[in-house]
Amino acid sequence: MNEVTFAVLGTGGIGRRTLEVSQHKEHLTPVAACDRHGVALDFDGLDVDELLAATEGNIDSGPRDDDVATDGGAAAAGGGVKQHGEDEGVVASDQAHPSENPIRDVVDHGDRIDAVLLALPNYEHDFIPRVADRFLEGGYSGVVIDVLKRSRVIGMLDERSEAFEEQGITFVCGAGATPGFLTGAAALAAQSFVEVEEVDIRWGVGLKSGYEDNRGTVREDIAHLPEYDIATARDLSDAEIEEIIDDRDGVIEFEDMEHADDVLLERAGICDAEDVTVGGVLDVRSDEKPTTTTVSVTGTTFDGETATNTFQLDDATSMEANVNGPALGYLKAGVRRNRAGEYGVFGPAELMPGF
Amino acid sequence: MNEVTFAVLGTGGIGRRTLEVSQHKEHLTPVAACDRHGVALDFDGLDVDELLAATEGNIDSGPRDDDVATDGGAAAAGGGVKQHGEDEGVVASDQAHPSENPIRDVVDHGDRIDAVLLALPNYEHDFIPRVADRFLEGGYSGVVIDVLKRSRVIGMLDERSEAFEEQGITFVCGAGATPGFLTGAAALAAQSFVEVEEVDIRWGVGLKSGYEDNRGTVREDIAHLPEYDIATARDLSDAEIEEIIDDRDGVIEFEDMEHADDVLLERAGICDAEDVTVGGVLDVRSDEKPTTTTVSVTGTTFDGETATNTFQLDDATSMEANVNGPALGYLKAGVRRNRAGEYGVFGPAELMPGF
Repeated sequence: MNEVTFAVLGTGGIGRRTLEVSQHKEHLTPVAACDRHGVALDFDGLDVDELLAATEGNIDSGPRDDDVATDGGAAAAGGGVKQHGEDEGVVASDQAHPSENPIRDVVDHGDRIDAVLLALPNYEHDFIPRVADRFLEGGYSGVVIDVLKRSRVIGMLDERSEAFEEQGITFVCGAGATPGFLTGAAALAAQSFVEVEEVDIRWGVGLKSGYEDNRGTVREDIAHLPEYDIATARDLSDAEIEEIIDDRDGVIEFEDMEHADDVLLERAGICDAEDVTVGGVLDVRSDEKPTTTTVSVTGTTFDGETATNTFQLDDATSMEANVNGPALGYLKAGVRRNRAGEYGVFGPAELMPGF
Repeated sequence: MNEVTFAVLGTGGIGRRTLEVSQHKEHLTPVAACDRHGVALDFDGLDVDELLAATEGNIDSGPRDDDVATDGGAAAAGGGVKQHGEDEGVVASDQAHPSENPIRDVVDHGDRIDAVLLALPNYEHDFIPRVADRFLEGGYSGVVIDVLKRSRVIGMLDERSEAFEEQGITFVCGAGATPGFLTGAAALAAQSFVEVEEVDIRWGVGLKSGYEDNRGTVREDIAHLPEYDIATARDLSDAEIEEIIDDRDGVIEFEDMEHADDVLLERAGICDAEDVTVGGVLDVRSDEKPTTTTVSVTGTTFDGETATNTFQLDDATSMEANVNGPALGYLKAGVRRNRAGEYGVFGPAELMPGF
């Protein structure tokens, strides 16, 4: 396994932190980053510090009407975040240039990019699949990896599986904290058992100081509430979102979320999708987690015992920390598969040791 | 990834259970099993039920003077365990034939065997390395996987790394419960962090009803006590072992064990070996675990928090269950690497997604 180069699409919260965390990883070089305004390219490795400093505050979490927008441009009107220089978004960096078609610019250099991380907002079910189409159209072969959450998107990607295989794309989906990190943990915890009866994933997020940087995530989460869906959440104004939060005193509880954990664990042969439940508690007014993120896997051992193995993330680990480390790990695992000629759609749990 | 065929060397506790658990795994076919007396071969897949029934009770945990012995022959004198038929060990099975050189018989069919699991007793540091030499001499290429525990053995295998690479052997070492399962968990739990400060692995084993089947493991564990080493533990009579156990009322505590977890986590780039501590409590008079097996990983997140993630195995999961599931998972992961042309020595944590 040699060096791995990667690009980030979107320079919002997830994209920026992925670049930052990649500096701690050996053999992993960020060579491209783009948003809706432009693209930064350097095949010797981006100067991440410069790029992050120059674009600091350029977080754009509002939905756009663009066909396939990239996250991280100028602040939404009234957002009041810092804006450096005259250029918007990534173009504020010395390493970037404006582009009418930043994704195309990345695809055009695809032969020097082993993996592309999609750190894009996801307000429509077919958003990630449509971005994938851009990579198919552009003739890219390599790894494409996303941090999506919704179960139904996996099916849309599966429809493209044959095209990915023909073109040499290894598409890794859902590789963030959840489903990524937590389904990986579930796949591991399942190894005591010959049959898994139940996987229960419960997350806690305290997002007070991180709220401004993660508005897109909060909007996406609201779409999981029974009264909303992706379309209605997308159309909420910032004021309406604040109202939803106020009504709940800042704490939003989620039960039986349509999280791709279920589909991805079934794909990996761990258990049936219907045996997976996902819930969580989001507190946007505290940095303390309202509940400890816990994966519980209940199964039967070969010697007939029923037991529950657990994996717990310390409350002091932020959602951000739990997205970006795993995402880069799965990215490297995806590159390994790609180089071995394994193409198509993969979930994180499928990248765990042949369990 | 196609079908995987595998052989088991040794039909003692670990070997037998690996065969049993493999029946629950898809795309995994046991085609060979051998002990010091003979070898069973069937490339359509062994009849595991017949083999296990025919050889039930043929557990041999005592050390032998053979150059490279295989586990699981006749009961040691005075052991008093059941003995089926006139043949000893695996030869009691209809599928087996006696052999003067059972390992050679397996190697000679190596082109039809994707992986070989070494389920052999390990009373000398160089035992597993010497078995590896047999596979090198015989011209085998494929996966060889063991469930060893001792740190220093890894170094001996490393000395053979170049030979493995030349011959196309992917050697996976330490793939049982510990270090295998638990270092895999540590590698995963480390993903919240950009720097890992400490990995603490503490295991509990209650071995009352499983004691007879796992005398070899108990003897190996005794070698970890400060007063003993592998050589002195090897020379203990059964009566002396009973005395050691009696002196401790059946409960043996281990601190700062020389367990390969440290070396294997360092190899995988998770942390320095010196930051890993392994201890445990073995109770041979109760099936209740004297302590809950727990992996604690303490590190610093990219955003500067210090935290501890934990992985816990339910007390109701037996040591046996926690060895065999992971071993087969890592076996499949090893085959994937081997087919991708990755040869040499690998620890379980290195087979986790590129973390």
